[in-house]
Amino acid sequence: MARVRPLSGFPEWTPTDRVVEAQVIESLKEVFRLHGFAEIETRVVETLDRLAGKSEAAKEIYTLGRLNAEPDSEAKLGLHFDLTVPFARYVEEFQNDLAFPFRRFQIQKVWRGERPQEGRYREFYQADIDVVGRENLPAHLEVEVAVVMARALAALPIPAVSMHVNNRQLVEGFYRGVGIDDVAGALRSVDKLDKIGPDGVRAEVTDKGVAATAADAILELARISATDGSFAAAVEDLWATTQTIDDIAEPEQLLKDGIAALVALVEGVNAAVPGTAVADLRIARGLDYYTGSVYETFLEGHEDLGSICSGGRYDSLVAGGGFPGVGMSIGVSRLISRVLGAGLAHASRGVPSAVLVAVTDEDHRATSAVIADRLRARGIACEVSPSAAKFGKQIQYADKRGIPFVWFPGAGGDADNAIGDGEVKDIRSGEQVPADADSWLPPEGDARPIIVRA
Amino acid sequence: MARVRPLSGFPEWTPTDRVVEAQVIESLKEVFRLHGFAEIETRVVETLDRLAGKSEAAKEIYTLGRLNAEPDSEAKLGLHFDLTVPFARYVEEFQNDLAFPFRRFQIQKVWRGERPQEGRYREFYQADIDVVGRENLPAHLEVEVAVVMARALAALPIPAVSMHVNNRQLVEGFYRGVGIDDVAGALRSVDKLDKIGPDGVRAEVTDKGVAATAADAILELARISATDGSFAAAVEDLWATTQTIDDIAEPEQLLKDGIAALVALVEGVNAAVPGTAVADLRIARGLDYYTGSVYETFLEGHEDLGSICSGGRYDSLVAGGGFPGVGMSIGVSRLISRVLGAGLAHASRGVPSAVLVAVTDEDHRATSAVIADRLRARGIACEVSPSAAKFGKQIQYADKRGIPFVWFPGAGGDADNAIGDGEVKDIRSGEQVPADADSWLPPEGDARPIIVRA
Repeated sequence: MARVRPLSGFPEWTPTDRVVEAQVIESLKEVFRLHGFAEIETRVVETLDRLAGKSEAAKEIYTLGRLNAEPDSEAKLGLHFDLTVPFARYVEEFQNDLAFPFRRFQIQKVWRGERPQEGRYREFYQADIDVVGRENLPAHLEVEVAVVMARALAALPIPAVSMHVNNRQLVEGFYRGVGIDDVAGALRSVDKLDKIGPDGVRAEVTDKGVAATAADAILELARISATDGSFAAAVEDLWATTQTIDDIAEPEQLLKDGIAALVALVEGVNAAVPGTAVADLRIARGLDYYTGSVYETFLEGHEDLGSICSGGRYDSLVAGGGFPGVGMSIGVSRLISRVLGAGLAHASRGVPSAVLVAVTDEDHRATSAVIADRLRARGIACEVSPSAAKFGKQIQYADKRGIPFVWFPGAGGDADNAIGDGEVKDIRSGEQVPADADSWLPPEGDARPIIVRA
Repeated sequence: MARVRPLSGFPEWTPTDRVVEAQVIESLKEVFRLHGFAEIETRVVETLDRLAGKSEAAKEIYTLGRLNAEPDSEAKLGLHFDLTVPFARYVEEFQNDLAFPFRRFQIQKVWRGERPQEGRYREFYQADIDVVGRENLPAHLEVEVAVVMARALAALPIPAVSMHVNNRQLVEGFYRGVGIDDVAGALRSVDKLDKIGPDGVRAEVTDKGVAATAADAILELARISATDGSFAAAVEDLWATTQTIDDIAEPEQLLKDGIAALVALVEGVNAAVPGTAVADLRIARGLDYYTGSVYETFLEGHEDLGSICSGGRYDSLVAGGGFPGVGMSIGVSRLISRVLGAGLAHASRGVPSAVLVAVTDEDHRATSAVIADRLRARGIACEVSPSAAKFGKQIQYADKRGIPFVWFPGAGGDADNAIGDGEVKDIRSGEQVPADADSWLPPEGDARPIIVRA
């Protein structure tokens, strides 16, 4: 037999670990649905011209070809590398079928030809939510989307998360107020704060022509953080001592609007899921693209994973303009890989069956099948023993598959007995009790596989 | 804005139609789980050498490449075109983690570069179940797998199905008994019966060296069908008058075993889901590969779709031998496309929300959010109105999204009132009644979107 080896970067789970993945995904769906998000699913392929528009991602795109294909006989296609590009296309294509603001969630695999490493896969699940308007989008949805994601994450078998939030207007108003014209360029440097430190950032931005006092001011701004609205006073104090330009009205308005939005965001999220949000003015990721709130989310004790759930407010989902929205995306596979790899949680078993119905002898297999169907009629997942071996062997089989209960048909399967009367054994405790197939229920935690936190 | 056009062969649904697809898939999963099948999911890529082994499929394989890739820098990969190739690889790879017989279901997209036409997609869902042993597999599982699929199909919003079943031993014993050596060759001709008719089949097999009397005998066999075990007598009668070879013991034993298995199958399936199974001795598809039972399933009134659920018993899942099993596969997307296209069923709405909580004015948005959370705490999907427009406008918004109920906070949102007291309006009937956010429930059929049969 040819040796089979895993493909690096393309994770697969055992049936037991797949229970964890499937239940995590189902849990996310349930929270999204409770909040009125509709599910969509897009095809996994997009045309290459659409995919490659985001140039930094182009080198990671998997293209599709055909064995023995005639050249140029097919549209040039690639696998999507995120769920935003297909969502934007979907909204354009289906705009006349959608009611705006359109609230959608989408949980699908995406593909990136990155060099594989822990937590970086080539095939992985993302879970996205977005709310998209047609011409405009109320600001309160920036709070709501963060609340929904905070709740979705709180429902998962993971440690607490810390959602770091910032606001583009606040930062832009402040930067312009201290005399910085190339706000996006300065933000790209501030985004490297973790890597190159304050001195590195200072050197970079002054190289780009930012005055030393302005560089100090934006580094000071990046130090401000708070879990409530108290950051506002710190920003206003800093602003009062550092703003330098003459025509201050417009930056000041941006700053004020940004502060108000960020106060509403951090307080709104913490009211819904206490202890989750932090206004963190060093967050610069995506501020060149996002136009309002931005979000980055870290898993406590697992900050090395980087952000597990990011997003922000944008002015236009599609290239031609229009469709302003706000969205966040969870890197689901990365999260599940850590949950399983670090033993944070596991599934109670890998099979759905709560019960193995034993078979007394092959002549009485139909009796066992009837019992199984009576259990199934009440939602109890079960299976009939594949062999009529000695009961000890059948119990071993259940044990090996992780099935907690074995059902023994009444009186050794004697057809004179009422068919549903039998005995059921909890093979973990060894306890065996009389039971009726029309009324017996497994304990709630045993009915289906569940996720057990460490 | 660039014009967006659907890609032929890559279907996508509106949110409302996606409800149908998602609920069909969830319904299949639930039936599979009730019968003790564990879910697995495999990566969508396989190495090309593994995929292209099935030569007739090779020309339909989508290969993966990379923009700007160095030649030969990557493993040669393609997208899987069914769920059997990846399942076989998975069983080989994870065999030490699995308990045999291993009962698995798998519902994933597959890709085939076929010429698109109605019901033939390039990207589509399949739903497979298989039971696989390590060295052997009891024959009763051939009945069980068919029963599970019959139940899974009966639970879907589709017309009744007709499962046509046959048995390789029966056919092989009979063919050999009338002197046919190249059984597989003769079966390939009989498989064309619908296309070329009895005369065409007779001409083909006699061309291949089959005696005219033998050709007549196998055409006569192909005419036999029954919804119970009565076909057995017809086969035995035909056998008595047509068997010609001297050394009859082995073919006769094959025939007898095959008849017994087919009787058990057709009667077992019809006992579980009456009116489903037909022993149909003309079924030849896959008999060159399958070694016991074979199944083909047709949708009543939609026979033009071809078989919507096929499979059979095989001796060895993997190339090296071992892992005998039995499995069936549903072409899910083809089925859903017909359900939607022919108006057999539709979703009651496209959004999960049962309730839109109206907002009296922006100062009272928090009140509406609290009401929404009280409803969600009891599992009621809802959303808060995005705008505090006049109530008439908010009702219009709910109507446009298909949300059946609008909740009005008490006394125009007056904070002095108990927050959860309000009124709820069924916007379809116009009926408006006082309601308490901690106890009101929508009618069962309105709680979540449901599938409505035509």
